[in-house]
Amino acid sequence: MRIAVDAMGGDNGSKPIIEAIKQFKKDYPDVEPVAFGKKEELEELSSICRIVDAPDVVPMEAGALEVIRMKNSSMCKAISTMKEEGFDAVVSAGSTGGFLSAATLILKTIPGVKRSALVTAFPTKIKGKKVVVLDVGANNENSAEELVQFAHMGKAYHQALFKLDNPKTYLLSNGAEAHKGSPLVKETYALLNNHFPGFMGNMEARDVLNGEADILVADGFSGNVLLKGMEGIAKMMSSMIKANFKKNLWTKLGYLHVRKGFKNMSETMDYKSTGGAMLLGINGVVIKAHGNSDAYSFKNALRVAKEMVDDQVINKIRESLSHE
Amino acid sequence: MRIAVDAMGGDNGSKPIIEAIKQFKKDYPDVEPVAFGKKEELEELSSICRIVDAPDVVPMEAGALEVIRMKNSSMCKAISTMKEEGFDAVVSAGSTGGFLSAATLILKTIPGVKRSALVTAFPTKIKGKKVVVLDVGANNENSAEELVQFAHMGKAYHQALFKLDNPKTYLLSNGAEAHKGSPLVKETYALLNNHFPGFMGNMEARDVLNGEADILVADGFSGNVLLKGMEGIAKMMSSMIKANFKKNLWTKLGYLHVRKGFKNMSETMDYKSTGGAMLLGINGVVIKAHGNSDAYSFKNALRVAKEMVDDQVINKIRESLSHE
Repeated sequence: MRIAVDAMGGDNGSKPIIEAIKQFKKDYPDVEPVAFGKKEELEELSSICRIVDAPDVVPMEAGALEVIRMKNSSMCKAISTMKEEGFDAVVSAGSTGGFLSAATLILKTIPGVKRSALVTAFPTKIKGKKVVVLDVGANNENSAEELVQFAHMGKAYHQALFKLDNPKTYLLSNGAEAHKGSPLVKETYALLNNHFPGFMGNMEARDVLNGEADILVADGFSGNVLLKGMEGIAKMMSSMIKANFKKNLWTKLGYLHVRKGFKNMSETMDYKSTGGAMLLGINGVVIKAHGNSDAYSFKNALRVAKEMVDDQVINKIRESLSHE
Repeated sequence: MRIAVDAMGGDNGSKPIIEAIKQFKKDYPDVEPVAFGKKEELEELSSICRIVDAPDVVPMEAGALEVIRMKNSSMCKAISTMKEEGFDAVVSAGSTGGFLSAATLILKTIPGVKRSALVTAFPTKIKGKKVVVLDVGANNENSAEELVQFAHMGKAYHQALFKLDNPKTYLLSNGAEAHKGSPLVKETYALLNNHFPGFMGNMEARDVLNGEADILVADGFSGNVLLKGMEGIAKMMSSMIKANFKKNLWTKLGYLHVRKGFKNMSETMDYKSTGGAMLLGINGVVIKAHGNSDAYSFKNALRVAKEMVDDQVINKIRESLSHE
């Protein structure tokens, strides 16, 4: 298994990515990461993996066309080499828009896929259980047929990741009742109901984390609002918690008693443990790591890439869409 | 000033509402609440305010037509009496869908208003500052022209509540850049940009609570996802915090040191202090209190109703839309 790694993208430069590759290689000696980036910066990886010199760095706000024009960029070269040499996966922490659209343009979508979707897993209040949400932002708008495909792709992804036989699939709506929702939701509901095994109905945004749903289907705009809205309030509450404990000697003393609980809590809420988001519907495993990934987070992104290849998620998507 | 109060709606029956009316009357002896509900249950209010017997209770999932057919329900009678006798406001903690659509059908929208919008204020990380968000769920879908009207109505509401001269208005989108967004967002952006004073551009869901925006405009579906998504994760984190402190004697001891900070935090996050949401665009002040309102929360809803009447928010909306 070979994984193309954009070693330059991301807010923190190549350092955490080099570290992540080292750790990943220790855990999975059989997998071959290939690092793309400034050769001299990646020197220390030379005994561990193949290095491809790609000295340019794609700016954070770059679009697809810019990326494709930057043939010597680590991001572009990672994707195009993956295609040319038939690698299994590509991972980048660089510009989301640029990476996703360049990957789509170069690798192409799986035959029959109308639109690709960005998928990620949210923590829930049930310990260890996650809910797979898609699309969280690859699209600005979607049709009902596209949402039905998202349900199929989400199921293949969920089964690859969690090996659950009959995941429960819900549709994000503004009310739980069958008749509630935007015209798009109503149309999608009608298509999924009685036709999609495991479809359980509509779900309000407030119930997404209650552990009931395994998969939540949303259009890219609403899914993005959900993801980022939750991220925003979680961040605000976390900094309020920290400030509470830092106030004075007594509150610091108080922290000593509860730190284990709060550490568990921030681990649960930590997006870094999910290792980024996958772009589903593309010919190949495409993983977008978080822009500010540290070594731990990026290693998780590499691990997810490996699992997706192991579980042949691309083939599963191909199959489930051909039966549709 | 007279305010029609549905004293039976809400998950907790008439008890907290009776208590709220008593407290409200103490704070504002000049305002006249009129209580609608089962006469025998409201007996103790007889020395404080007028009571109108309306023995039926609208079920939580009732729609507009059901409410209107239930002529002897506290909700329906409150709205229709408001119309007949020219009251200034109506407040209910009953079925959202039923209340909003019955109020719209009976009281009618302000001339020129295309769609009414549900507005509420979110806490931000800047102490004491709130951000006004609309529509949070009155509509299943909206046009760009409707969103422009929401911006006008939101401004009138914000000025009535916070007396700020030039509130900063943003549009909820999946990216902060001008070209980002759904087709609806792009169209609305073009209409607001350079035409709407104080329009600052697009805002991602993760930045809504950072204190930068005074007003956030969204279509009813996305606004609802934002509101309920935040509510869901805030609830989950709060219960994790509580569980952390309740673990054993040591963690309880820890809590003693930080309880003041955490109390402040839960007050900041407490939706009860906002007193519910207002339906903007209707002829008259229509306030939807939370279904599970306690006396404190319902009193805040009554206070918001009073402030909206004091500040003539309906006239302000009428004016701002006539200049449009």
